[in-house]
Amino acid sequence: MVSKKIAQALAGSSVIRAMFNEGKEMAARYGAENVYDFSLGNPATPAPESVNRSIKEIVDEMDPLELHGYMSNSGYEDVRRAMAENLNRRFQTSFDAHNIIMTVGAAGGLNIIFKTLLDPEDEVIVFAPYFGEYKSYAANFDARIVEVEPDFASFQPDLEKFTGKITAKTKIVLVNTPNNPTGVVYTEETLQEMAEILRKKEQEFKTDIYLVSDEPYRELVYDDVKEIFLTKYYHNTIVGYSFSKSLSLPGERIGYVAVPDEVADAENVIAGLEVSNRTLGFVNAPSLIQKAVSRCVDEKTDIAFYDKNRKLLYEGLIKLGFTCIYPQGAFYLWMKSPDKDEERFVQAAKKYHIIMVKGAAFACPGYVRLAYCVSPQMIEKSMSGFEELAKEYGLVK
Amino acid sequence: MVSKKIAQALAGSSVIRAMFNEGKEMAARYGAENVYDFSLGNPATPAPESVNRSIKEIVDEMDPLELHGYMSNSGYEDVRRAMAENLNRRFQTSFDAHNIIMTVGAAGGLNIIFKTLLDPEDEVIVFAPYFGEYKSYAANFDARIVEVEPDFASFQPDLEKFTGKITAKTKIVLVNTPNNPTGVVYTEETLQEMAEILRKKEQEFKTDIYLVSDEPYRELVYDDVKEIFLTKYYHNTIVGYSFSKSLSLPGERIGYVAVPDEVADAENVIAGLEVSNRTLGFVNAPSLIQKAVSRCVDEKTDIAFYDKNRKLLYEGLIKLGFTCIYPQGAFYLWMKSPDKDEERFVQAAKKYHIIMVKGAAFACPGYVRLAYCVSPQMIEKSMSGFEELAKEYGLVK
Repeated sequence: MVSKKIAQALAGSSVIRAMFNEGKEMAARYGAENVYDFSLGNPATPAPESVNRSIKEIVDEMDPLELHGYMSNSGYEDVRRAMAENLNRRFQTSFDAHNIIMTVGAAGGLNIIFKTLLDPEDEVIVFAPYFGEYKSYAANFDARIVEVEPDFASFQPDLEKFTGKITAKTKIVLVNTPNNPTGVVYTEETLQEMAEILRKKEQEFKTDIYLVSDEPYRELVYDDVKEIFLTKYYHNTIVGYSFSKSLSLPGERIGYVAVPDEVADAENVIAGLEVSNRTLGFVNAPSLIQKAVSRCVDEKTDIAFYDKNRKLLYEGLIKLGFTCIYPQGAFYLWMKSPDKDEERFVQAAKKYHIIMVKGAAFACPGYVRLAYCVSPQMIEKSMSGFEELAKEYGLVK
Repeated sequence: MVSKKIAQALAGSSVIRAMFNEGKEMAARYGAENVYDFSLGNPATPAPESVNRSIKEIVDEMDPLELHGYMSNSGYEDVRRAMAENLNRRFQTSFDAHNIIMTVGAAGGLNIIFKTLLDPEDEVIVFAPYFGEYKSYAANFDARIVEVEPDFASFQPDLEKFTGKITAKTKIVLVNTPNNPTGVVYTEETLQEMAEILRKKEQEFKTDIYLVSDEPYRELVYDDVKEIFLTKYYHNTIVGYSFSKSLSLPGERIGYVAVPDEVADAENVIAGLEVSNRTLGFVNAPSLIQKAVSRCVDEKTDIAFYDKNRKLLYEGLIKLGFTCIYPQGAFYLWMKSPDKDEERFVQAAKKYHIIMVKGAAFACPGYVRLAYCVSPQMIEKSMSGFEELAKEYGLVK
């Protein structure tokens, strides 16, 4: 018999599994080219050509015992230095190798941060809507997720509600900008106010509150939005990063955690992350791909590709009368469901072979998420289906 | 402040960290060629040449979106099929892709098995001496480690003591053959008796007891010892495997878990392992290296190299009067400490620049472990130091 937690997880995840299977069945029945699957956050642009070139060069150049062997649980020293220097150049930080822990993606990074910081019953504040996996990560360490309801006008964090949720048990405030699922980028003002609130609450409760920034979409920003790095706003900030989106390497599981020296108990936090990498079973980030990303750290995915999709989808849907949040980052569009029951809306869309994710999966019912990391042709072809859907809900005639 | 568990782990791991630093300091002071470090289980033979060739071919041949992209959390279907077919050919199993979950090494594999099966306070039986990390893995899920004392004559599991340790709370019996740290390979008789005991206890307690086989050293066997695969002895057997040793890829973090259909609740166990891979933050085993090992699954590391080292070290130490268990597998030699306090013996050896690991690290004081995954030259050069040590303890004149 499986454990109680896993039995629960299996019951809960069957909805998503069912949806995944439904998409595959639809593709089999109608042809993949006639199914408009906006459900998955899988990059649609290939890794920059330099990644594969680097892999081949590294394999030819390096001693295989070093290339495929154990290194420090934090990663290769030279790779960590390359990450530190890249951040220093771009964000005027002053990191060295010791501030960086290479991780098995951002999911691995968040889990070792949580393991290092959280005791059972500690509270992790998240801003709805948020990536559903955060719940599982907190549950791994018997911590409690505390949700802050959205500001439905802007989908910036609602800082008044946030202030009311901070308690003496608050250990982590988890933020994600550019945001999955809304595509919103937190403003400078939001971040400064959030930092001010956290500083006051740390004093009030005489606790350390860590701001954990989940940044897999850091480089995916559009228009005149600038890439930001959150350590400059608040002293107790720890950053989790992934190359999954910026270099289109989600299957390779490669990212890092950055811990500034000014973080409370920094030395133990860094040592704890290294121990957690080992004891949670990651041991270290995969070795060859560590070396590869270190050579390609200044490369970027094809942002123009996503930008084109973004405009195509946003403008198409707005024209049809749908209400959407204008996405400034990531590759997600957040749309208000014209049906107050968004699950019914998601079902209705399937008639036109359109697959979206219900807002309830992000703790925000009444909305749906569309991932536009797809081909522009798919977006264009999907529009007649969206038009039918808009008619059905009386948005257009 | 870090979590209580991590604060404890940091206090506990400082001994090993101190030792690691001591080794590095010694190398700096006396020259690396004059330090005889037998402490680390890092493969000393490079990955077979076909691994690097496969990596380059795969990078040239495959669509980068598929090669570096997300796949099922269990791994690529074709890779899992290749693992299943390899096992079927060698061990007359009847696996298909659905029985295999690709994992982030054996450490990742054991953690998802533990997460899938263990509720808090469940018991995991281990046979001393055993790999110390098992304690951390059980602690991740608030399970209890129950140690069975060794049979000091053979270092085969002591099955009488084992029988007495099984309770209604026993959920997992964890075995490791070829064994780290003893180099012992469990006999056919041991495995059959163990299975018989487990079957009886399952009936007595009306519980499912899973035998979890940690098999990173499966292919490292010497003389006429045969490679074995444990699923044929007991119906409730789950296997965790790693390519770290067999293909010398410990840094790449690649392995798999095999779950036979006859395991109790097999369907949920398999689904639970897939969910655990995701929710513990592994997501999936690294993608490129999945493809690479799938092409090299019939390759093997240079066993003759380790075999030569094994004889060199064992015969050298026996000649000097030390008492050692004759290793039949893995790349470790298990030696009785001539000092009843083996920590003092480990300290004494440092005078001769010899670094070994104390038995207490494997829950078996009075012994030391020597890893002979080193160069034969190092073993030869170390012998004069061992001779001095033997004289010091009155083993030779």
